Amino acid sequence: MTIILGLDPSLSCTGWGVIRAEGSRISHIANGEVKTDAKAPIAERLHHLHDAIRAVIGSHAPDRAAAEEIFVNKNPQSTLKLAQARGAVLAACAAGGLAVNEHAARLVKKSVVGTGGADKAQVQAMLKVLLPGAAVAGADAADALAVAIADAHLSYSPLSR
Amino acid sequence: MTIILGLDPSLSCTGWGVIRAEGSRISHIANGEVKTDAKAPIAERLHHLHDAIRAVIGSHAPDRAAAEEIFVNKNPQSTLKLAQARGAVLAACAAGGLAVNEHAARLVKKSVVGTGGADKAQVQAMLKVLLPGAAVAGADAADALAVAIADAHLSYSPLSR
Repeated sequence: MTIILGLDPSLSCTGWGVIRAEGSRISHIANGEVKTDAKAPIAERLHHLHDAIRAVIGSHAPDRAAAEEIFVNKNPQSTLKLAQARGAVLAACAAGGLAVNEHAARLVKKSVVGTGGADKAQVQAMLKVLLPGAAVAGADAADALAVAIADAHLSYSPLSR
Repeated sequence: MTIILGLDPSLSCTGWGVIRAEGSRISHIANGEVKTDAKAPIAERLHHLHDAIRAVIGSHAPDRAAAEEIFVNKNPQSTLKLAQARGAVLAACAAGGLAVNEHAARLVKKSVVGTGGADKAQVQAMLKVLLPGAAVAGADAADALAVAIADAHLSYSPLSR
C-alpha cells in the first residue's frame, strides 16, 4: 500500500491530490488547492505554497510525490512564475522526506485517459470513473490527482505486488 | 543601522552576502556560497538551498533581503533551473520574515561600479574598495554582496538618516 501525493504547482493556485495505491487498485484520500494573494510579494506567496504543502504532507503522510515535468511556456513571465512556484513546492516535498517522480504531461494524460492528447474535460471525466465519489476542489486539484494516478499506474507492475 | 542580505540564487551554487548599512556607510558582515550536489534529485537540491538560506538568516538576523530581478535566459533549461532555485530561496526569505527587494542587473552594476555595463571583474574590484578586508567566497558570493550594496545605496537618502 502506497500513498501518493500528486502536485500541480503554480504561483496563483497549486493543486494537490492524495491517493492510495494497492497493486493496480487506487482510491481517493484527499485533494485541495492552495491559492496565494496576487497582491502579496512573490517571496510571501512562495513561502505560503511551501508551508501549505508541508502541512498537506504532515496531514496525509504520503510515501512519495509526483508532478508533471516542467517546460518553457510561450509566455516567459508565466514560465518564471511557474518555475519559482515549483521550486518552493518541490523543496517542501524534500523537506517532508519525499522523493518526487516527474512525468511528461502527455504520459500523464495517456495513463489516465488512454491518449496523450486528452483535454482537461476528458481528464476530469476519467477522474470520476477512477476515483468515484471524490469531491474535486477544482481544475488544479484535478490535474494533481491525475498525476498521482499516472504515478501509481506507471509504478505498478504485477511482479511488485 | 540596517542589515541587508544579498542573494544570487542558482541551483548549483547560490551566493549570499550580508552587509551593515548605516546612512551612506556600508561594511561587510559575512558571505558564502551554498553548493548543491548535481547528482542529487532536484527536490533535494531545492530543499538544501531553502534550509541553508534559512540558516544564514538565523545566524545573521538581516532586516531585509535583496536579489537581482530574474529574466528569461537564452537557454530554457537553465532558466527553469534558475527560477526553481530562486523560488526555494525567496520562500526561505519570507519564512524568515524578510521582505525581498528586487533590482535590475544593470541597476546593481550601475550602483556598485558606476556603469550598468560593468563586467564581473569590475564588480569584484569595486567590492575590494567598498568592503575592504572582506574575504569573498567566490563569484556568486561577490554577486550577492553587490546586490546587497546596491540595495543599501538605492534605499539610502540623506533625509532618512
